Amino acid sequence: MDKEPHISQRFDEELHEVHALVLAMGGVVEEQITNAIKALQEPDAELAREVIGRDHEVNGYEVRIEEECINILATRQPAASDLRLVMTLIKTIADLERMGDKASKIADMALAMGHGARNDNPAFLRDVGVMADYALNMLRRAMDALARADAEEAIAVAKGDEVLNQEYRSALRRLITYMMEDPRTITPAIDALFIAKAIERIGDHARNICEYVIYLAKGKSVRHLPLDEVEQSIQGK
Amino acid sequence: MDKEPHISQRFDEELHEVHALVLAMGGVVEEQITNAIKALQEPDAELAREVIGRDHEVNGYEVRIEEECINILATRQPAASDLRLVMTLIKTIADLERMGDKASKIADMALAMGHGARNDNPAFLRDVGVMADYALNMLRRAMDALARADAEEAIAVAKGDEVLNQEYRSALRRLITYMMEDPRTITPAIDALFIAKAIERIGDHARNICEYVIYLAKGKSVRHLPLDEVEQSIQGK
Repeated sequence: MDKEPHISQRFDEELHEVHALVLAMGGVVEEQITNAIKALQEPDAELAREVIGRDHEVNGYEVRIEEECINILATRQPAASDLRLVMTLIKTIADLERMGDKASKIADMALAMGHGARNDNPAFLRDVGVMADYALNMLRRAMDALARADAEEAIAVAKGDEVLNQEYRSALRRLITYMMEDPRTITPAIDALFIAKAIERIGDHARNICEYVIYLAKGKSVRHLPLDEVEQSIQGK
Repeated sequence: MDKEPHISQRFDEELHEVHALVLAMGGVVEEQITNAIKALQEPDAELAREVIGRDHEVNGYEVRIEEECINILATRQPAASDLRLVMTLIKTIADLERMGDKASKIADMALAMGHGARNDNPAFLRDVGVMADYALNMLRRAMDALARADAEEAIAVAKGDEVLNQEYRSALRRLITYMMEDPRTITPAIDALFIAKAIERIGDHARNICEYVIYLAKGKSVRHLPLDEVEQSIQGK
């Protein structure tokens, strides 16, 4: 009566701690993306440099969480839903780390564009603002779904990625039109295009996290399946 | 004498099987990239469609290998170097799957560009050819390093990624020059730019695999460390 529950309770605490660390990492990544977009829109070179300087914080979370997950695998030998949780966290941090990289790249471009005062195209800044708000909302909701292992919410967020992809394609078409109308805008428009692409990729990573959450909650991999099919199979359960 | 070694031998076989599956997946991805580039250069619409149609094969490998790895974690509770191998394989297949996606996207663009007979810019095709050969060589060498858990080779390949990044930046500058000289080339040049970017990303994924191989061989994570530092610490061992 005194050893078994103690071990199990320590294990629960370890799992809870590492889960909380992943949610904290998600919070930092969200802040990094928000600040990178703000640095671009203001423009604010100091904020851009702050984002670039904080990228190691995101990387540090990834390394620490991965070590703790491997430690749990080695010492606790989790099975069933505990094992799924550890796998979900390991996969989630890889996507969060890549989102952090995108924030850092956007901040890099905010610096490069700020110097030449090139980012004075209000239509482009509006496109980026709309896309970034959407992607940030996806990230927040994906992390909430992870916190609650909520498959229904995860699938709703994943489905929304198509809206972001459409926004991206529209922004791309508008950028190509600007370039054709005025070839002097080509260089800044190419920068803008990479920023739009980075935001679109942030949405893809949020969608990946949602797929892991569905796996966590439902116990089966839904990667590479059409979302409508996944939704039906979840509701059928 | 008859139970322990038997279990251990079955376990070795399981690990060996899943390792072999990952190497086979690497071979398919290499073929997909090779064919996508060929479909673009010829151009060959049928080959492009074949690449797109075979993407599910790459995805199938990812799902199957991940299931087998989770099964090994759940039933064999591997520790130390066995656990590192399983983690390395789980991470490697995520990068291979993304490289497969890039091949499929290049094939998509080969189809789109082929219709308009736009890919008749020999300088661009040469750039893509050079970059693709380099990226494919990185992938092949990364998979060889994985097969032999060879940290020295992995670090050599990872360091080479900077060469590919430079090739990419040069190609990007040339594309921007074409667009400025002749704005009618803007649309095909944007397609070309995304193809160059996809190849550059394939190199990043090969580099990621190399970092996992170093972790596998040396037992410590080298993600986010400067490669020169990693090299010194490996040689110091």
